[in-house]
Amino acid sequence: MAKRSYPLAKVYALLEPGPVVLVTTSLKGRANIMTMSWHTMMEFDPPLVGCVISGRNASFDTLKATKECVINIPTRELAKQVVGIGNCSGRTVDKFAKFGLTPVDAAQVQAPLIAECHVSLECRIADARLVNLYNFFILEVVQAWVDNAVKKPQTLHHRGNGLFAVAGETVKLRSGMK
Amino acid sequence: MAKRSYPLAKVYALLEPGPVVLVTTSLKGRANIMTMSWHTMMEFDPPLVGCVISGRNASFDTLKATKECVINIPTRELAKQVVGIGNCSGRTVDKFAKFGLTPVDAAQVQAPLIAECHVSLECRIADARLVNLYNFFILEVVQAWVDNAVKKPQTLHHRGNGLFAVAGETVKLRSGMK
Repeated sequence: MAKRSYPLAKVYALLEPGPVVLVTTSLKGRANIMTMSWHTMMEFDPPLVGCVISGRNASFDTLKATKECVINIPTRELAKQVVGIGNCSGRTVDKFAKFGLTPVDAAQVQAPLIAECHVSLECRIADARLVNLYNFFILEVVQAWVDNAVKKPQTLHHRGNGLFAVAGETVKLRSGMK
Repeated sequence: MAKRSYPLAKVYALLEPGPVVLVTTSLKGRANIMTMSWHTMMEFDPPLVGCVISGRNASFDTLKATKECVINIPTRELAKQVVGIGNCSGRTVDKFAKFGLTPVDAAQVQAPLIAECHVSLECRIADARLVNLYNFFILEVVQAWVDNAVKKPQTLHHRGNGLFAVAGETVKLRSGMK
């Protein structure tokens, strides 16, 4: 695996730009993947991530039961897999096999990392009080893995119905903001 | 104003890609602006948006008191203003004047739209129960305005410390996902 351990206090800058992500879960040794775009950072350190996962997803039940998942960030090379994963259910499909992705053991959770993603964030549920009302989970990132060779990741930003903007050129401005 | 009223059920596709936004508030006729990147869609229709606003911001107090704001989406032409607005406080600065932005009356809330942004979303607080714990507001978008002439908006996606990825080329894939 090309990824190395990454400081938790810098995780916010990976998710703050709003990339579509692949969330892995695992129940009784059976791993699953879902596509997700509804997430936001909520705290810097330890990093908290809020996200909405529809109750229709198999991953919803697994996350609720195991309280663990991994957030993986794909880039444009994985666009087809991102959409394909969002269009079938782990109840009937082994998504790792179907989409040719490689599960890698995580350090602190049962859910696997996806080798083909340059970022993987091991998470545990920190607060579930809004799950019943909004399907909203607050996750704490407990371990982060980043492939530092990927300098300007071409992340995918969903605009609905399978249309994605790819992260393009970067603009650097002098800022006092974190 | 180039913006026209926009269907609420389509708002999700504007915020889901994770652009940095400019949030306007207004208290006793005095309007303010803040820069925000920590937001997520939470429901399609009526659209709900969850967002974190630090208690250090003047906008936090105004939003809490008035229960209203406008989320405006800037594009790359406004990158300097986005950072400048994030680096000063409305307690001491009239940000509309300082950054040469034009306030436009909203239809349903006191906070103004920003004329220079191609999207403006009038919002009211729908749920404040996580404000004390996480500074997390759940907003309902009650009126949306979009300049349809902007087809592929070059939105800004913050990667920390004033570095932004600009939304670049688009990829369209066949998808059953909304």
